[in-house]
Amino acid sequence: MENRQVNIGIIGLGTVGTGVARILLEQKELLKTRSSLTYNLKSISDLDWNRDRNLDLSQVYCTTNAHEILDDPDINIVVETIGGYEPAFSFISKALKNRKHVVTANKALIATKGMELYKIAQENDVDLLFEASVGGGIPIIKGLREGLVANRFESIYGILNGTTNYILTKMHREGLDFADALKEAQRKGFAEANPTLDISGGDAAHKLAILGSIASNSFIPFEKIYVEGITGITKLDMSFAQSFGLTIKLLAIYRRYEDGVDLRVHPTLISNTHLLAAVSNELNAIFVKGDFVGNTMFYGPGAGERPTASAIVSDIVDLSRDLLLKEGEKYSNRAISLTQNVRLIPIEDIQSRFYLRFMTADKPGVLSMISGVLAEYGISISSMVQLESHEKDNYVPIVLLTHEALERSMEQALQKILKFDFVREDYLRLRIFE
Amino acid sequence: MENRQVNIGIIGLGTVGTGVARILLEQKELLKTRSSLTYNLKSISDLDWNRDRNLDLSQVYCTTNAHEILDDPDINIVVETIGGYEPAFSFISKALKNRKHVVTANKALIATKGMELYKIAQENDVDLLFEASVGGGIPIIKGLREGLVANRFESIYGILNGTTNYILTKMHREGLDFADALKEAQRKGFAEANPTLDISGGDAAHKLAILGSIASNSFIPFEKIYVEGITGITKLDMSFAQSFGLTIKLLAIYRRYEDGVDLRVHPTLISNTHLLAAVSNELNAIFVKGDFVGNTMFYGPGAGERPTASAIVSDIVDLSRDLLLKEGEKYSNRAISLTQNVRLIPIEDIQSRFYLRFMTADKPGVLSMISGVLAEYGISISSMVQLESHEKDNYVPIVLLTHEALERSMEQALQKILKFDFVREDYLRLRIFE
Repeated sequence: MENRQVNIGIIGLGTVGTGVARILLEQKELLKTRSSLTYNLKSISDLDWNRDRNLDLSQVYCTTNAHEILDDPDINIVVETIGGYEPAFSFISKALKNRKHVVTANKALIATKGMELYKIAQENDVDLLFEASVGGGIPIIKGLREGLVANRFESIYGILNGTTNYILTKMHREGLDFADALKEAQRKGFAEANPTLDISGGDAAHKLAILGSIASNSFIPFEKIYVEGITGITKLDMSFAQSFGLTIKLLAIYRRYEDGVDLRVHPTLISNTHLLAAVSNELNAIFVKGDFVGNTMFYGPGAGERPTASAIVSDIVDLSRDLLLKEGEKYSNRAISLTQNVRLIPIEDIQSRFYLRFMTADKPGVLSMISGVLAEYGISISSMVQLESHEKDNYVPIVLLTHEALERSMEQALQKILKFDFVREDYLRLRIFE
Repeated sequence: MENRQVNIGIIGLGTVGTGVARILLEQKELLKTRSSLTYNLKSISDLDWNRDRNLDLSQVYCTTNAHEILDDPDINIVVETIGGYEPAFSFISKALKNRKHVVTANKALIATKGMELYKIAQENDVDLLFEASVGGGIPIIKGLREGLVANRFESIYGILNGTTNYILTKMHREGLDFADALKEAQRKGFAEANPTLDISGGDAAHKLAILGSIASNSFIPFEKIYVEGITGITKLDMSFAQSFGLTIKLLAIYRRYEDGVDLRVHPTLISNTHLLAAVSNELNAIFVKGDFVGNTMFYGPGAGERPTASAIVSDIVDLSRDLLLKEGEKYSNRAISLTQNVRLIPIEDIQSRFYLRFMTADKPGVLSMISGVLAEYGISISSMVQLESHEKDNYVPIVLLTHEALERSMEQALQKILKFDFVREDYLRLRIFE
């Protein structure tokens, strides 16, 4: 490393890539003061050079050909900010094989192809970092891997998706229905034109797979995580939740048990007094419980050009330090150890308290029939609300909160209850977090 | 480093030292899995070997002579957990001069003698880490130095002292007076027999000096920080605060301005809707605002054997990595850069909104006299409460909230108001955080 200078190439000058370039150019002196290294943004590749990014790139080599960066022997660190599976996977693989460290924010790729990529990194004695893939600017991955390294993680749970949290906040505070809240999120730029990956819970599950893999030192495939989105939640449910002193949040949850780990993403009722209930709009927050540290929480902006770029540059600074390591020592404690093989506990075997909301015909005996089925499956009710009918078809909502019950029993009871002709099909089952 | 083993010596087997030993013994396999290094707790020195710590020390060399650790050429990392200024300073200096990395939780020492110690570390090409000195188990120092390295820090503020937060929580929730809340904190082990350093704000100021130094890349001497404790707060003030939708917290505040930085510790009124208002009992939380990341928050247990030890062990793992660096590269971006020389803005030049509570004789004209003095100094009132007398000496509380005003003007106005014979000397002035 001549003159203690680190040469960086960025592949993809979209929102996040632009933020990274901005930091490397604007904070050059600050970063030098802090790390005694000079971060030289050498090259950027992008297919579109017509857009104005409000950046002075006069000292940067700009190209449409990513391979010019990947093949440049002077480049020490490659930043991948194009997103998606291909060509991102090919570019990252090539960079690692060419013995360059890589930084990415690509959660979908890490959550699905992470294991392959780590192996390529390891074989080539370089490293792959992805702080920005979870929690945007929040240094949560560093927190788990380094700050809390002394802990076995008992649980990790939180709000990992800003879009859905924005929608739920609007529904909660302004009484909007889901569709209207989604429209507002799109108008404000907090939801994409195609919001499926966010509102289905898929994006949060990608992030949970990454956190769970780090926490358990095992690669947890994203596909194995139980996922439910927020599309079934109505403003009626929001107001019922409020009446119980609860708030609905889309939580990503990792829990460690004696015989394995439990990972899931679903809308969850939490107490209004829980700190997560106060995490509003597009913000993210993650609780981490370690066996020594106890409960900690990390909070901040989960997306956006500047926060995401902040996380990427922290990875660049970390990797630059690796360039100072002795030959053959590069793959040490910066790397994620995925040597364990943890068991994933199936959702059916998990216990939860539940919120059940049915729309039922307004006639006698309905409640006793429903509670009878629950009793048959050993599920006991802790509270119940039945409202008068406000709908012209004469269906009324019945809401039940249960004590702890097995998911399997609940599923069976639900199937039976939904067969009653007085129960409409648009029910909602939520889990209560404790 | 033979067999990739790191040899560790602990000086001081009190609460925190015991926690560190416990982690190194109990989590040995976990730490090896995560970092591919073996952490060998080689020696411990303490003066008292009669106390039972519930630790199996059969494989550890135990001594009453710290110099046996400091002079042992096999020891790579020394953990100082005796606290206080001496002999801690001498021990740390000697360890660094003997080219051992050092980890400490000693906030008082770092906040006052930090600059001297960093220089010794630098001269000897070793490092000195102190994650546990601020925020207990919360990885806040790592967060600032590494996770948010790309940011200029615009503000850092939060609850850095668990004892005072416990007392204020009790006063707020249970309506206790200060003396009773302190007694309960002592009974529960959250306050020391001599609580002066905590309740005076001194402990929080030590921690703020450390955070401020890291944030500004300048050594900020603890003595220059404006500090007020919580002893003047009464349950009357707590209930007035509540009536305005505010909560009183002891905040440590760092703010960056064009012409310098402002650091202070004082009881502060914050909105009940602010996340910090929900940080209760002995917990700590720190908001960090960076120019790229925006607002982030770190939350967790600020003290205790296990959380503090968790932070110390994270430093040990970080330093172990330094043992893999090329010769002459040890003092790089792990080190704190204190090369800048930032100006400290005097408290008199700071603007705040204020809460003023006076006890005044219950007679006509009092309020107009007080508000007249405030007006004279250009201080305008935003709200006011005057209660009926409940005290037999016929003094009544008057509470005023002001708009933004200069500290200097407020101080002058206060001196004048306190000269009125109808104003008792036990007034309270608090700042409102916005």
